[in-house]
Amino acid sequence: MRAEIIAVGTELLLGQIVNTNAQYLSRGLAELGIDVYYQTVVGDNKDRLIEAIGIARGRAELLVFTGGLGPTLDDLTRDALADYLGRGVELHEPTMTKIVNMFAGRGGSFVESNRRQALLVDGATPLRNDTGLAVGNALNVEGTCYMLLPGPPREMKPMFDNDGSAWLKEQLGPASALHSVMLKFVGIGESGLEDLLIDLIREQQDPTIAPYAKEGEVAIRVSTKAGDAEEASRKMGGTLAEIRGRTAAYLYAEEDVPIEATVVRILTEQRRTLSLAESCTGGMVSELITTIPGSAVVYLGGVVTYSNGMKTSQLGVPKEMLEGPGAPGAISSETAAAMAEGMRKAADSDFALSVTGNAGPAAAEDKAVGLVYIGLAERGRETRVEKLQMSGDREGIRLRATKRALYMLWLSLTGRE
Amino acid sequence: MRAEIIAVGTELLLGQIVNTNAQYLSRGLAELGIDVYYQTVVGDNKDRLIEAIGIARGRAELLVFTGGLGPTLDDLTRDALADYLGRGVELHEPTMTKIVNMFAGRGGSFVESNRRQALLVDGATPLRNDTGLAVGNALNVEGTCYMLLPGPPREMKPMFDNDGSAWLKEQLGPASALHSVMLKFVGIGESGLEDLLIDLIREQQDPTIAPYAKEGEVAIRVSTKAGDAEEASRKMGGTLAEIRGRTAAYLYAEEDVPIEATVVRILTEQRRTLSLAESCTGGMVSELITTIPGSAVVYLGGVVTYSNGMKTSQLGVPKEMLEGPGAPGAISSETAAAMAEGMRKAADSDFALSVTGNAGPAAAEDKAVGLVYIGLAERGRETRVEKLQMSGDREGIRLRATKRALYMLWLSLTGRE
Repeated sequence: MRAEIIAVGTELLLGQIVNTNAQYLSRGLAELGIDVYYQTVVGDNKDRLIEAIGIARGRAELLVFTGGLGPTLDDLTRDALADYLGRGVELHEPTMTKIVNMFAGRGGSFVESNRRQALLVDGATPLRNDTGLAVGNALNVEGTCYMLLPGPPREMKPMFDNDGSAWLKEQLGPASALHSVMLKFVGIGESGLEDLLIDLIREQQDPTIAPYAKEGEVAIRVSTKAGDAEEASRKMGGTLAEIRGRTAAYLYAEEDVPIEATVVRILTEQRRTLSLAESCTGGMVSELITTIPGSAVVYLGGVVTYSNGMKTSQLGVPKEMLEGPGAPGAISSETAAAMAEGMRKAADSDFALSVTGNAGPAAAEDKAVGLVYIGLAERGRETRVEKLQMSGDREGIRLRATKRALYMLWLSLTGRE
Repeated sequence: MRAEIIAVGTELLLGQIVNTNAQYLSRGLAELGIDVYYQTVVGDNKDRLIEAIGIARGRAELLVFTGGLGPTLDDLTRDALADYLGRGVELHEPTMTKIVNMFAGRGGSFVESNRRQALLVDGATPLRNDTGLAVGNALNVEGTCYMLLPGPPREMKPMFDNDGSAWLKEQLGPASALHSVMLKFVGIGESGLEDLLIDLIREQQDPTIAPYAKEGEVAIRVSTKAGDAEEASRKMGGTLAEIRGRTAAYLYAEEDVPIEATVVRILTEQRRTLSLAESCTGGMVSELITTIPGSAVVYLGGVVTYSNGMKTSQLGVPKEMLEGPGAPGAISSETAAAMAEGMRKAADSDFALSVTGNAGPAAAEDKAVGLVYIGLAERGRETRVEKLQMSGDREGIRLRATKRALYMLWLSLTGRE
């Protein structure tokens, strides 16, 4: 079954709100094994709404609407659908009773326009609204399904999850749902990953393989339709094993978590501790680590040494290493190592990561924008330093340096390096 | 000019990401006086994309696309538009050079698929990508305008704001353009600000007053249509003066800059320096300060003390203050003051801010989630501490505590407190 989600509301077209409903419904429909082919947003205008219904009717068997069921004159969705189908509307008595009682209970006077929220398109099944007033509508007309849901997420979500999903399952019959596995990678870019898997991606049929990038990380979703989890795992097993084999050096999770969550989890399991010495990332590594609840158990703290003075006073980096003729300077392999080692000793932690570099916009110490050194000091092991030349803007360089530092730590924690 | 926004990406139809691009562009187009009539989302499928272009072409004069300009086989937007228009594609040499240089600089090998990101539809104007690789496209074909933007927001936004908007203004001609002033506030919430200005907001006609909240800050945009800047300033002058008078304790900028940029600018002008001692914000204050280019001149560095041990070793907070019977504890006014003073002395800076509190999710030291103390030590002045009880989730508390700390510093820097 192909679906289209139609969100109705001028406030979406003005950019006053984000269409989070479309995301919620897309996910919910995917879980039912229903493919969403289009999402459309149209304003509170009856003619344009009817036009949009006509277009959607030609390319989908299920049209899910959000918004436009409220009491005001701008709320046109129900009327537009009734007009499109050539039907009338009827009063849903239980909803009307609920509305009248609510006004009586509040001591307010019933406003006639509120009656509109109790209307159904002729022949529609009512969908219960446990968190608001407007009743939902669901109807199947000659094989095309229409579902009308309210716009406010706190009304839309429970209505869809309860009566809405139940009604859709009836329409689908005993069909099969979409199962998928999310693979998360770090230390490799989107195109590099695609190169590793290009033949699998080109030849994909079932399961499907969809790569995508987000905030300094790369992900792949492997999906198939199956009657149950066991059948799904049988159908996806071969593909997943092949991908795992080729990407072992980068594959850090098989669920949608950021690398910092995986690093905190492994540190916790291994009862080991971390400290951080940051220069060009300015605290971003620390900030990401501490977004993870429970990170306080393994993360002792860090230092942001933006000035050379702080590198010496807080981390014990020798002044001669930072300044003077022939000195390696703050942006150097030597300083990265000294920062990591100084931090690890000061915090008495099992690991310390350091980042020093030039995130731009201008050259510093005559060193190019994007030149970054990452140091990893580990109790009982020799300190390692990685040198990177990154491109992009200041924020991009800082973010990728941060993820790269977490990658180095992950490699060491998992015995890969 | 009627516009339609077409977002391309199967990840949107699967509900993996929210279409925030549509909101950003809807706002941006509204500011240019362009009405958005539809938003459409379509998957990475060439036939369906071409169909969507045909439909949009019939109901809008401007089609703005996001997504599908990357290097992978799924990135089809440029090809689909070229096919629809019956045109070929051509290589944009400056972008190609940039891509090749980037790979050379990284020491990586150039992957052929990356060449795709340098392609233009024949006859298109290139739109510069300062934060990524794929070049944007803009073209006017027989009165219909097409604009191709990348999908990642950090590439899409600057491209639209710079080359994209400039190109659109050319297409619009010297009409009566929208002029607006953005007022930025800190230390006050959206509803608090609205209370201060409620009569102005209710009675607004021309200029219009639109409040909105973003990332821990509140903004108001005052707008009017005018032939030139002088006419606009005449029309908006009275309203702006009234707003300034009522909000002086919170109004930190009359352009769209974050508070951290204003703080760095004032510190630079006053030739004063800052250091930071963070606990519950985990480095977020430092991270925000260092997003500002040039912050290295005034920001010496900071310490993230996630453990009590680090509070003592790095900042000299007395152990008896942190632990033991009757001790105020890490989350206390005394510790906030000691952290700020210890940091200021260690870094020898003019100011030091400290943040200590409980960002959740669970109570710590028997202290409620959301309890936060902010300290400000200043050379030659008495240390001040502010106690706050915040609500919301972990990230919300951290962000608002961060902005609140910057607010305290701004008050002091500007002589307000």
